[in-house]
Amino acid sequence: MITSPHNEKLKEVRKLQRRRERRFVAEGEDLLAAAADAGWPAVYELRAGVDVEADLLDGVSGLGSGTRALGVFEQRWGAVTGPLCVALWGVRDPGNVGAVLRSALALGASSVALGPETADPFGPKAVRASMGAIFQIPMARVGSVAQLPSPRLALVAAAGEPLRGPLQGTLVIGAERAGLPDEVVEACDVVAHIPIAGDSLNAAMAATIALYESTRVTAP
Amino acid sequence: MITSPHNEKLKEVRKLQRRRERRFVAEGEDLLAAAADAGWPAVYELRAGVDVEADLLDGVSGLGSGTRALGVFEQRWGAVTGPLCVALWGVRDPGNVGAVLRSALALGASSVALGPETADPFGPKAVRASMGAIFQIPMARVGSVAQLPSPRLALVAAAGEPLRGPLQGTLVIGAERAGLPDEVVEACDVVAHIPIAGDSLNAAMAATIALYESTRVTAP
Repeated sequence: MITSPHNEKLKEVRKLQRRRERRFVAEGEDLLAAAADAGWPAVYELRAGVDVEADLLDGVSGLGSGTRALGVFEQRWGAVTGPLCVALWGVRDPGNVGAVLRSALALGASSVALGPETADPFGPKAVRASMGAIFQIPMARVGSVAQLPSPRLALVAAAGEPLRGPLQGTLVIGAERAGLPDEVVEACDVVAHIPIAGDSLNAAMAATIALYESTRVTAP
Repeated sequence: MITSPHNEKLKEVRKLQRRRERRFVAEGEDLLAAAADAGWPAVYELRAGVDVEADLLDGVSGLGSGTRALGVFEQRWGAVTGPLCVALWGVRDPGNVGAVLRSALALGASSVALGPETADPFGPKAVRASMGAIFQIPMARVGSVAQLPSPRLALVAAAGEPLRGPLQGTLVIGAERAGLPDEVVEACDVVAHIPIAGDSLNAAMAATIALYESTRVTAP
């Protein structure tokens, strides 16, 4: 039982809450269960009242409410594979990155590519928002559209054709306000938009709808 | 300039972060701007370095990172109106409730109804997840399906017909694991599911897809 705030594991957790390292923290029983289900073992787990005094664990928690359990994990990077990859470009909000991971897993994407200026998926907010999908969907960093499975579809606010599934290849999605850089759109094979009246979808909502269009089982 | 942690406004903010009252807190410049755009004035705003010392404001912030500005607002409840209402039943997660408000606004729903066992939309997590939609989409508490605009469509995991838009009336959505109670499904006019392979959509993702099906401009 850890009883000192100067314990090395607690020091590491505090550090990982602040900046990206080769390890990351996942908090809460649901995330630990998702990791176990995915066969991704923790380097170590800390459970309140078992491994560590409850108030010390709360002290290193990234959750406002404290936590009952957390795990420290080694990062794992995979490959950008088809049949359907989701690529994020300039999505700086870690909550949106995590939500995209979750949608990608739920709606059957095969991998998630993280382009330039996109938040760290292993940061605490992204891990939390992924609701465990971080342990199940392959992820990779990419630097250019050329690294993505073809054909590549650039999802934009109001140009190109209306998005219609089924799709294979890569869905390339930008941030809510900035959208995709021109050179990324130009490097893609197809340009499409989600046919809605407004234009205020964030990356996670756009990914959810685009993946739904791309993978739905029943033909319309 | 507030320079004491015992200030009455700071005491009220601390209290509102913990429990529901007739007032609520919204943190961050984006939310304050959304409130102003919607014509929903704050009872008072507190800006770091202007109205209050920065560290005192951080001390009452519900955000892990602290905040530069927050506002205290009176709650407003509206009416459950058509043409397209989203009703939540048993959605206990405030982040999901807030995300549904956001999707409802972005995808053109006319109102959001909050059924039994559904998280307080004015709680800090819901307000934050709404990204300002809380100030723009009419909301009402309801106790029974009979209070909802007709026809009412119960969205379930794997029964009824595949969801196909356009729709009018009410989309009734339950929580991810529990789903809708039997008596709610029976009280609805139509039962439908989102035609995807998996069944792991949360309420916000289901609402996003269902509203997209319901309101998209371009016919498939």
